[in-house]
Amino acid sequence: MTQQTKEMNPPTRLMMTPGPSSVDARVYRALAAPIVGHLDPWFKGMMDDVQVLLKQVFQTDNRTTFPLSASGSGGIEASVLNLLEQGEEALICVNGVFSERMAIIAEHTPAKITRVEAPYGQAVNPEDVRSAGKGKKIKMIGLAHGETSTGVLSNIDAYRKVADELGALLVVDTVATLAGAPVNVDKQRIDICFSGTQKAMSAPPGMSPITVGPRAEEAIRNRKTKVQSWYFDLNSAMNYWGKDRLYHHTPPISLIYALHEALRIVVEEGLEARWERHRQNLLAMVAGLEAMGLGMFVKNPAERLPTVTAVMIPEGIDDVKVRNQLLDEFNIEIAGGFGPIKGKIWRVGLMGHVSQKANVLFFLAAFEKVLLENGYRAPAGAGVAAAIKNYTQMETAAAVSR
Amino acid sequence: MTQQTKEMNPPTRLMMTPGPSSVDARVYRALAAPIVGHLDPWFKGMMDDVQVLLKQVFQTDNRTTFPLSASGSGGIEASVLNLLEQGEEALICVNGVFSERMAIIAEHTPAKITRVEAPYGQAVNPEDVRSAGKGKKIKMIGLAHGETSTGVLSNIDAYRKVADELGALLVVDTVATLAGAPVNVDKQRIDICFSGTQKAMSAPPGMSPITVGPRAEEAIRNRKTKVQSWYFDLNSAMNYWGKDRLYHHTPPISLIYALHEALRIVVEEGLEARWERHRQNLLAMVAGLEAMGLGMFVKNPAERLPTVTAVMIPEGIDDVKVRNQLLDEFNIEIAGGFGPIKGKIWRVGLMGHVSQKANVLFFLAAFEKVLLENGYRAPAGAGVAAAIKNYTQMETAAAVSR
Repeated sequence: MTQQTKEMNPPTRLMMTPGPSSVDARVYRALAAPIVGHLDPWFKGMMDDVQVLLKQVFQTDNRTTFPLSASGSGGIEASVLNLLEQGEEALICVNGVFSERMAIIAEHTPAKITRVEAPYGQAVNPEDVRSAGKGKKIKMIGLAHGETSTGVLSNIDAYRKVADELGALLVVDTVATLAGAPVNVDKQRIDICFSGTQKAMSAPPGMSPITVGPRAEEAIRNRKTKVQSWYFDLNSAMNYWGKDRLYHHTPPISLIYALHEALRIVVEEGLEARWERHRQNLLAMVAGLEAMGLGMFVKNPAERLPTVTAVMIPEGIDDVKVRNQLLDEFNIEIAGGFGPIKGKIWRVGLMGHVSQKANVLFFLAAFEKVLLENGYRAPAGAGVAAAIKNYTQMETAAAVSR
Repeated sequence: MTQQTKEMNPPTRLMMTPGPSSVDARVYRALAAPIVGHLDPWFKGMMDDVQVLLKQVFQTDNRTTFPLSASGSGGIEASVLNLLEQGEEALICVNGVFSERMAIIAEHTPAKITRVEAPYGQAVNPEDVRSAGKGKKIKMIGLAHGETSTGVLSNIDAYRKVADELGALLVVDTVATLAGAPVNVDKQRIDICFSGTQKAMSAPPGMSPITVGPRAEEAIRNRKTKVQSWYFDLNSAMNYWGKDRLYHHTPPISLIYALHEALRIVVEEGLEARWERHRQNLLAMVAGLEAMGLGMFVKNPAERLPTVTAVMIPEGIDDVKVRNQLLDEFNIEIAGGFGPIKGKIWRVGLMGHVSQKANVLFFLAAFEKVLLENGYRAPAGAGVAAAIKNYTQMETAAAVSR
């Protein structure tokens, strides 16, 4: 038997990364359910269920709500390629790798793209977007609600206001936030909103749920030219996910099963309870990290993602060695930084199923040991103690308010 | 609990469709293995294994060999979008829905596309391709080795010869054939070859294995313009699947696990043994169907796909009623026709794990009962008897030759 035909036995990691997150055992069970055909009447019913559940999670009545057969980056591509044509203009808010990716993908269209930038670690100033669009006909404004590469949360409403003033459509990347931080597509009037299954929804990676509002649908219907991608053309995708269930391409059946189960878990918990859980675990972890003397990359607490925390790497500590030891000794995976902030930050994910008190305390304890052995001396036990204190206070406050 | 939050329990179907095919229990086990990160050192090793296995199945040494994170149609899109630019010209052989899809997708590029057509149920005449390209500078010739919509197999070598004469690159869709019918990328000098995981490889749907030869790689590297899709840009995808393992997008980890196991099964069986199994089960099934008085849509036996058989629907018999009864009474799914041949043919798949003697005999027996109850009277027991006779003859011949 050659090396490559060995049986595959993956290690059991605690995925404290900015995605994929560890998934519930119920999701694995659904993933391994018997495959049926994509035109099987039973499967068509399942698709209805997934769409109903997705609408609840996006908080929308948009009929065009379904999971694209692609990663979250496919969600970006579908959004911008379907909206933008020759002679049009878009503003993209860029404050990290994933919002920049939206700009890069938009630059594949013949439309004119203007990047409105902010330093890494901050949200783009809506005032800068307003200035950039002043006196111009802007077709869309795009932003990442959660910028996974830096841990920054942006305030959707502020950009919606600018988009209204400019008469622009608003496209929001909620890959890092949907089901982990408040998003309300209808109330916030997001024209196209997409996400990724492997983050706060805690399904396996491979699909990008998307929802398209009536104004964006109309814009797509009224295009003068073909969408430059067949695969991501929302018109034809919707013939399959729409009421006709017309065949477009074979979707990843097993991933749809898993997404169905993950969405059920989200809806059973309730969105508000889920957001609150993410918020509390973030606060406790940040309290612990700060008590260990570590700095947060995102200075403004209101701009911190509840799902991804960017921690400053202390002077003289080796990024990769720390991460490798966490992985080898504790099976905990955290991530490093990208591009200009590579080696400067660690990114710790608390997404979906991973955002648990047990994981926060375990991580702080393991992190203390690993940092100590890599030359960083935090006050002994201070991280865990601060997180415990924070949890106790939050629980006491919740008990009193009941 | 609302309707949509019910537990999901799919029926156990025998997938005698042109894909997805039923998968081995080993593949389900791999699918449900613990998810790790896409940059986890263990996972990077797994990716190496998948690439080594894929090269064996494609029979190639091409370094650019990996599974795209998309359905088989994504494989079409990646192939044509990466090769074609403004001012270039391509010939696409069109003899069914999927080869036409290649033309449709190619028509999304600014290149000039010429369709070379054949009637449904036949392969495109290589002579027609030669005439269409005469005196022109042709960048690529595209074809479907197996046309899933009609059950037609094309002879790759004949088109390679024309491509050589015209100096064109050859792009071959092996979605319906790879691991079920002979394909040898290096020997047949296919420049870009892609497939789908859910057919004769019997992995779940959701990935499109692709291999890019040196001449095609060079053509992509020498493009004058950007590839019009970011998601399907093979340059950047190869940075992740290449030796650097640079992050591009989060791939469907679980589907890669499943593909790994499905490929191990293919390699354990051996390609030649697997092709022979597909060939024998096809011959036995066709013998059975013909003994039942049913006609084959593909008249030339040399042009019949070993994986998908198109059966003429007898006069007066209701396509959909028959298929529904097979599904409801026996949990067997077969497919109907598309477009101009809708209601005229059934398509019966014998792909990968499904191509088994047991399934052929069971299907013929169940089909006889269902047809009888829908007003078609085949000679009683003739289908099963003919298939048995065919198997016995093939087994005797094999025993003698040993």
